[in-house]
Amino acid sequence: MKTLGEIASYVGGEIFGDPSVPIERVVHPALAQGDSDLALILSPSATSFLTLGRVKNAILPVEVGAVPTPNRIVVTRPRLVLARLLELFERPVYVAPGIHPTAVIDPSASVGKNVSIGPFCWIGPKSRVGDRVRMVCHVSVGAEAAIGEDTLLHACVCVGDRCKIGNRVIVQSNASIGADGFAYVTPEPGSIESARATGAITSFNQQLIRINSIGNVVIEDDVEIGANTCIDRGTLGETRLCQSAKLDNLVQVAHNVSVGKNCLIVAQVGLGGSSKVGDRAVMGGQAGLPDHLKVGDDALVQAQAGISKNVPERAIVIGSPAVPNRQFLEREFRLKRLPRLTAELKELQAQVAALTERVNSLLPRSSE
Amino acid sequence: MKTLGEIASYVGGEIFGDPSVPIERVVHPALAQGDSDLALILSPSATSFLTLGRVKNAILPVEVGAVPTPNRIVVTRPRLVLARLLELFERPVYVAPGIHPTAVIDPSASVGKNVSIGPFCWIGPKSRVGDRVRMVCHVSVGAEAAIGEDTLLHACVCVGDRCKIGNRVIVQSNASIGADGFAYVTPEPGSIESARATGAITSFNQQLIRINSIGNVVIEDDVEIGANTCIDRGTLGETRLCQSAKLDNLVQVAHNVSVGKNCLIVAQVGLGGSSKVGDRAVMGGQAGLPDHLKVGDDALVQAQAGISKNVPERAIVIGSPAVPNRQFLEREFRLKRLPRLTAELKELQAQVAALTERVNSLLPRSSE
Amino acid sequence: MKTLGEIASYVGGEIFGDPSVPIERVVHPALAQGDSDLALILSPSATSFLTLGRVKNAILPVEVGAVPTPNRIVVTRPRLVLARLLELFERPVYVAPGIHPTAVIDPSASVGKNVSIGPFCWIGPKSRVGDRVRMVCHVSVGAEAAIGEDTLLHACVCVGDRCKIGNRVIVQSNASIGADGFAYVTPEPGSIESARATGAITSFNQQLIRINSIGNVVIEDDVEIGANTCIDRGTLGETRLCQSAKLDNLVQVAHNVSVGKNCLIVAQVGLGGSSKVGDRAVMGGQAGLPDHLKVGDDALVQAQAGISKNVPERAIVIGSPAVPNRQFLEREFRLKRLPRLTAELKELQAQVAALTERVNSLLPRSSE
Repeated sequence: MKTLGEIASYVGGEIFGDPSVPIERVVHPALAQGDSDLALILSPSATSFLTLGRVKNAILPVEVGAVPTPNRIVVTRPRLVLARLLELFERPVYVAPGIHPTAVIDPSASVGKNVSIGPFCWIGPKSRVGDRVRMVCHVSVGAEAAIGEDTLLHACVCVGDRCKIGNRVIVQSNASIGADGFAYVTPEPGSIESARATGAITSFNQQLIRINSIGNVVIEDDVEIGANTCIDRGTLGETRLCQSAKLDNLVQVAHNVSVGKNCLIVAQVGLGGSSKVGDRAVMGGQAGLPDHLKVGDDALVQAQAGISKNVPERAIVIGSPAVPNRQFLEREFRLKRLPRLTAELKELQAQVAALTERVNSLLPRSSE
Repeated sequence: MKTLGEIASYVGGEIFGDPSVPIERVVHPALAQGDSDLALILSPSATSFLTLGRVKNAILPVEVGAVPTPNRIVVTRPRLVLARLLELFERPVYVAPGIHPTAVIDPSASVGKNVSIGPFCWIGPKSRVGDRVRMVCHVSVGAEAAIGEDTLLHACVCVGDRCKIGNRVIVQSNASIGADGFAYVTPEPGSIESARATGAITSFNQQLIRINSIGNVVIEDDVEIGANTCIDRGTLGETRLCQSAKLDNLVQVAHNVSVGKNCLIVAQVGLGGSSKVGDRAVMGGQAGLPDHLKVGDDALVQAQAGISKNVPERAIVIGSPAVPNRQFLEREFRLKRLPRLTAELKELQAQVAALTERVNSLLPRSSE
Repeated sequence: MKTLGEIASYVGGEIFGDPSVPIERVVHPALAQGDSDLALILSPSATSFLTLGRVKNAILPVEVGAVPTPNRIVVTRPRLVLARLLELFERPVYVAPGIHPTAVIDPSASVGKNVSIGPFCWIGPKSRVGDRVRMVCHVSVGAEAAIGEDTLLHACVCVGDRCKIGNRVIVQSNASIGADGFAYVTPEPGSIESARATGAITSFNQQLIRINSIGNVVIEDDVEIGANTCIDRGTLGETRLCQSAKLDNLVQVAHNVSVGKNCLIVAQVGLGGSSKVGDRAVMGGQAGLPDHLKVGDDALVQAQAGISKNVPERAIVIGSPAVPNRQFLEREFRLKRLPRLTAELKELQAQVAALTERVNSLLPRSSE
């Protein structure tokens, strides 16, 4: 347990009131109950709960101003403080230490020290699992795979043969790492090639030949992967998630993709085969990056954007097909003014008609 | 087995023919074979199968009119009748009664009466499982979780620590309940903040600090959750699905979200962090609701809509960015008329040019 | 191991250099190391790696021209050659032959010859599993289901009761086959019906009645299904994937859907209830097909398209709402010209104003 003073010191805030109060829980202000609850206020609107008098200890941004709470910590950048607080008050997932008796570990696999491997996990031949790895339950690690130290695999995570996962990686439940790529070829040029070449469908996919995936997935240190997210293996080489990339739930990462360092890939994004996302790029929810295209370093792709050409570094793009944000706003503005444009044209037509008639009435046509 | 007369009575239909016929199966008219098959006709187009003579018993809407089937039940609102019929003829998922010998139940967990817990299920410490709960196989329930009575968890459902699921809830296979929220913060303002403030990327995500999720998921009674759908746990508090909300497959529900009563959330919808969906709202497939935004009670969000501001109650919105349906139709109309607008402008330009020339030829400019 | 000459013969290429070289691996040119590596070059840009001198053997398209590699195979249609090569060098998923001791097979199930059924698989009552079927681990096959010969089910695949899977089918990890359809009805007409009838929400979904799904899923021979993809069972009848249809990851296939032969359905596509995709149709990533609509044979639906009416055969559609590609391009062209249109209108307004003034100054109005 920490005291309020220790917490203030840890998060870098200024304390008002009694620093010796022991804190057991960090809670939303609506849920604060006892003397050992610390209510976290992220925005001014949340202060409405303070008037109820149940909040004895609060942590709040300096912008909020005076509050009636007996003890408080005043901070700047509250979202960062939230992160720090939840390091202190983290509630790690339950996995019993050691290897559960139902887990199956191939005799040729190696498992590090102080691991926690839960019920019904399976580790295949020649795979290596690092020290302090945690696997919650129903995790599978195929043959010749490697899991780095301190990595956490939640329930039902599937790691395919030969995939390599770094240190301190977190993979949420039901994620699929190392499924085969989606790659086929028609013996003769098929409908997609005909559409690209001519803009019409003049040849047909009478036969689809599978392109096997013999590559793997490489996940570097500190990457996080969301629930039910899929990372397909490379065709010949690798699909790679670079250091500290963060992927949300239900994301699709196709074969041969490379995702840069510190990327943020929000839920339901789709990254097509051999596409590339630069370092520190951000892709909003449900955005799509087609095969072979690139998103540059530090670019920001808005939610639902449909990329149709390479996105330069530091660009902000939006829409489907995606365009730079200023172009998008300009187009939206133009579209909103379409009724006015139409009205102005109509008005001008009337003016011209009237003027023409006037000129006609006063100036007989020379041919007349 | 029910007789045709009992069925007519149960669904509230009018019977023509022999009410004593025993019915074994309800089938699509194309599949009707024997004297004990009841063919369900939902629309006039399905009557084409009746002429084959294989349909002895049919249930059909009054709009269809006369059909040559010996026995029939005539109904109104056939889709409701379908629901009633399939209550009678439900084929529940197979799970053997009792606890399968391979299931692992922590000694500190409590399990109710008459449960059916299939192969390879795991129930963690201090969790409580209610009476008549069914878990098909490979289900995991973490520590200190609660599963209400009569709830059904299909294969590979993962329920995280401390999550609470109500009574009569149905969760389809591979759903992830209680994964960590997707939440990070940069020590200094990063690219997203710079984009919001200035419309350009002038600061960079050099470091991403994780915000742990210590909250949980609360699922109220009669909720249904689709296959491979993800419900992340709250950051501090809860992510809540209110009574009787229905979520389809592959839906993303981020941390701190609240989904109202009786909502219908169609497949592949994404609900961003701390967003809120009102009671009885409907969200079409692949629609997206960004962080912190709200959809009002009874609103209807069309498929693929990309919401960019709060949706009022009872509104119908469509498009990305989403706008009210009437505004969308107006814009579509304007866009379709753009070629005509262009042509009219061109025509007017020609008229003005001709008129100007005429005026010029007849009225020499004063400066000339 | 194959020699270079045997490989040239198998893929139909012309060999230059020593045909007797034994080849152990096919690699990306960047990864070529030893004398037994064969570097596969798919495009001219990949030839930059050849100058490093580490590539002793290359296979490359005729368009690339001369390269400094000692031994080479020159081919046409390199993507087809890639497929052929990876047939030769396939690295099949690891599953030990036989039935793993932890697998649970119901005594009433039947299992064919030479199967490989991995750890923690469960096969339910009366199900039939064909010869040479492979199940990696944590696979579940419910009651009365059927799995054809040579079919491969990866980790955590869930196959529901009564579903039928053909021969040589491949299902990637965490796929859900046979979940219940998403189907509800309100006792009285609800909000969706009111929106359709009137364009406004005037009635409300006070109660949602579940429509049970008693049908199944039928998957024909040579179909492939991606990771975390969901195929819901039919309401009364079947959901069917026809021969050789290929579905990528995270695809939603709702109840009663029919997907034609040789279709390519890219990641995150959503197919609504009772929709139909014709033979050889292609649907790009994240595209959506609403309930009851149809995509014709050989049609090409671009990524993120939102279909709003039936797509004719051989059509190419794009956008949300989706329109034919030529119409889309025309509209994009018009939108890009909107600023010019506005400027031209403004210019014309000025001309007309000037002309009017001139006419006014020279020709006093008759009323004046």
